[in-house]
Amino acid sequence: MCFGNRREENVDRIYAEYDLETPGDLTDTAAIIAGEQSSGTFMKLAGETEALKEAFGARIESIVETGQFDKPSLPCKIDGTKYTRGKIRLSWSLANMGISLPNVLATVAGNLFELREVSALRLLDVEFPQEFAQKYAGPQAGIAGTRLLTGVSSGPLIGTIIKPSVGLSPADTASLVLELAEGGIDFLKDDELQANGPHCPIADRVQAVMTVLNRFADSTGKKPMYAFNITGEMDEMKRNADLVRDAGGTCVMVGIHSVGLPCVTELRRHTDLPIHGHRNGWGLFSRSPDIGISFIAWQKFWRIAGVDHLHVNGLRNKFSEDGASSIASARQCLTPLFRGAKDFRVMPVFSSGQSAEQVEDTYKALDSTDLIYCAGGGIMGHPQGLAGGISSLREAWQAAVAGVSLEAYSATHPALRAAVETFRPRFS
Amino acid sequence: MCFGNRREENVDRIYAEYDLETPGDLTDTAAIIAGEQSSGTFMKLAGETEALKEAFGARIESIVETGQFDKPSLPCKIDGTKYTRGKIRLSWSLANMGISLPNVLATVAGNLFELREVSALRLLDVEFPQEFAQKYAGPQAGIAGTRLLTGVSSGPLIGTIIKPSVGLSPADTASLVLELAEGGIDFLKDDELQANGPHCPIADRVQAVMTVLNRFADSTGKKPMYAFNITGEMDEMKRNADLVRDAGGTCVMVGIHSVGLPCVTELRRHTDLPIHGHRNGWGLFSRSPDIGISFIAWQKFWRIAGVDHLHVNGLRNKFSEDGASSIASARQCLTPLFRGAKDFRVMPVFSSGQSAEQVEDTYKALDSTDLIYCAGGGIMGHPQGLAGGISSLREAWQAAVAGVSLEAYSATHPALRAAVETFRPRFS
Repeated sequence: MCFGNRREENVDRIYAEYDLETPGDLTDTAAIIAGEQSSGTFMKLAGETEALKEAFGARIESIVETGQFDKPSLPCKIDGTKYTRGKIRLSWSLANMGISLPNVLATVAGNLFELREVSALRLLDVEFPQEFAQKYAGPQAGIAGTRLLTGVSSGPLIGTIIKPSVGLSPADTASLVLELAEGGIDFLKDDELQANGPHCPIADRVQAVMTVLNRFADSTGKKPMYAFNITGEMDEMKRNADLVRDAGGTCVMVGIHSVGLPCVTELRRHTDLPIHGHRNGWGLFSRSPDIGISFIAWQKFWRIAGVDHLHVNGLRNKFSEDGASSIASARQCLTPLFRGAKDFRVMPVFSSGQSAEQVEDTYKALDSTDLIYCAGGGIMGHPQGLAGGISSLREAWQAAVAGVSLEAYSATHPALRAAVETFRPRFS
Repeated sequence: MCFGNRREENVDRIYAEYDLETPGDLTDTAAIIAGEQSSGTFMKLAGETEALKEAFGARIESIVETGQFDKPSLPCKIDGTKYTRGKIRLSWSLANMGISLPNVLATVAGNLFELREVSALRLLDVEFPQEFAQKYAGPQAGIAGTRLLTGVSSGPLIGTIIKPSVGLSPADTASLVLELAEGGIDFLKDDELQANGPHCPIADRVQAVMTVLNRFADSTGKKPMYAFNITGEMDEMKRNADLVRDAGGTCVMVGIHSVGLPCVTELRRHTDLPIHGHRNGWGLFSRSPDIGISFIAWQKFWRIAGVDHLHVNGLRNKFSEDGASSIASARQCLTPLFRGAKDFRVMPVFSSGQSAEQVEDTYKALDSTDLIYCAGGGIMGHPQGLAGGISSLREAWQAAVAGVSLEAYSATHPALRAAVETFRPRFS
């Protein structure tokens, strides 16, 4: 694929690539999609002149057939004798929707998945013109800012998630945070299920956790980054971002699918804290090979809106995503989205069934340490306790970067050795 | 199904029903989902006590097996000898997430679709406790308010969509609006692709359209409702809602999937105009029988957030949704969500390949005229022009409500007759 906002010619057009299957003809169906997304009715209309269509109609840029099948991949009202699949690439003039993320979304991922002429449709990629880098703020901290705030100038940030997800009081959370900080953690986050419920109100949690972290920072010079889950209503999110900042916190987290694009854009304008983008609900877009949006396309929207970190699962994770897909997602996060200083690179967050076990393979596949490596059970389930779990992850990364095998390195590093023995690959 | 926020016992719990398929055991997998959505890691944790689990763990309320299959419906990392399907019902204490729509969403539709133990998962329904009716404003105008603002005290609102979707200037739009108003239209809306692009800025469009509609209202006493598509950034939406109100407009429209739940909640608080909820992108959630969210569940979130109108497609529509599903969706919109005066009923919007042809069957199926019946091509493609198209729709509804057949009524109503001849069923 030749995507990634790197083409010079797309100064004033939005491009989108799809995997399409249809009971009809591939070209005809591409034309129907292009028509639906620029004139949108089943009748030839009086006002729909050739000049208007030329200026505002979506264009078919390319069509490549990839296969033919006997059955439709999704239930389809139209019966075909065969179902043709292919990659299609469309484009729209920016004049149609302006430099507006929500309206680009309505254009490239609006009323097209529902079309009766479609028996499968996935949005594979979107190419935004450079103008989006001017209008939108993009990530505030990104990779460099996150390193600066955590004092981790090289290597991955070793992170964890407060568990159990829900049920701990603010005081219980703060105790756990202290133990993790003392164990050497760089990054902590609330679970996505822990926001502002009555059993652990965020105001009390911020107060309790930051008291511990500020004191820890005063005595050690190191302040781990804690991503407080402020997912909620717009005014509540702004208020709680202020609360986190006022308490000396350095990060807020939002569930991107819970809040939507304009809320992230608005939060980015409001706060100077990095925004940790959690993608819970992502399975809705990713599980079916026949309907949805690829993370390659999806992550661009959120980076432009202004998140600084994005979850990518990881190798041998507990979810259904395969490792190659996670690595491809992480690589995209590390790839400039635009030319110039505002390249909108963000930190990929490896999380989901991660432990020291996957580190070597992750480094080999990604060839970068610009990432947050989060383990929940991989730290809390370590036989030597939290500090052992954190040490094992750091040692695994040291080994990987040095090109020393896990076996060799663990011979002289007991925490790593315990992790290797405990966390055999449990997911394929 | 026994759903619909009507149970008396669910005072402090959220209930959700799913269609689940798994290579494993149905009960085990329900327990994994419940666990993932309340403790969320693959290790037994020190802090996860029995008391904590009792208070905050998700509960399995019921499991009903519905079938067994040889193959997984979605690609699945875990191989099974069989794949068991069933309906499961889970519940959570409100204490986990509080009265918060975005956090309910993270709970009932978060990190569960991705689970490796799942080979199909659809969210079928959600049951919100009555507390949500107190905290959230819900629809402002709803059915009664929309009727009041349009002066249509009985029968459906006959509506249309400005077409072509994009490309018309503000002046062109206003000319078309005048012709439609003179033809007797009750409701008009921007296409979802027409928001605030440079070729037709919303400020100019509001100005041009409302000049026409205000003048028309002054001379006739009838002001058709125009839903201006203000989909955009949060501050932009608020500003443009004010602009519409200041110009004498009576409705704003947002693409719900483009803006997200908290933006609708915030907009509802900000403006006293009805919010027309467009669901473009809905195919992402609805096309696959194996992954997604039913509209029965989904519409509840948006009604609580505060939309007044919701799109439901319609019979023999141009999309892939079948008619029965559209009717079920419309019926839900008309069903009280909560006890008491704040029942959060909204107007269903029939739109997508609609013409006079489907009216009789729609009325028979729904047994209500509390709806907006939108036709684009069904009006603009009428052989007698826009006025003929509008008359044909109104006449079709008169016939349907009176119980007179389309054939009999069209004998004495030329506009309807022309519609019957032109708009033969074109979609099954």
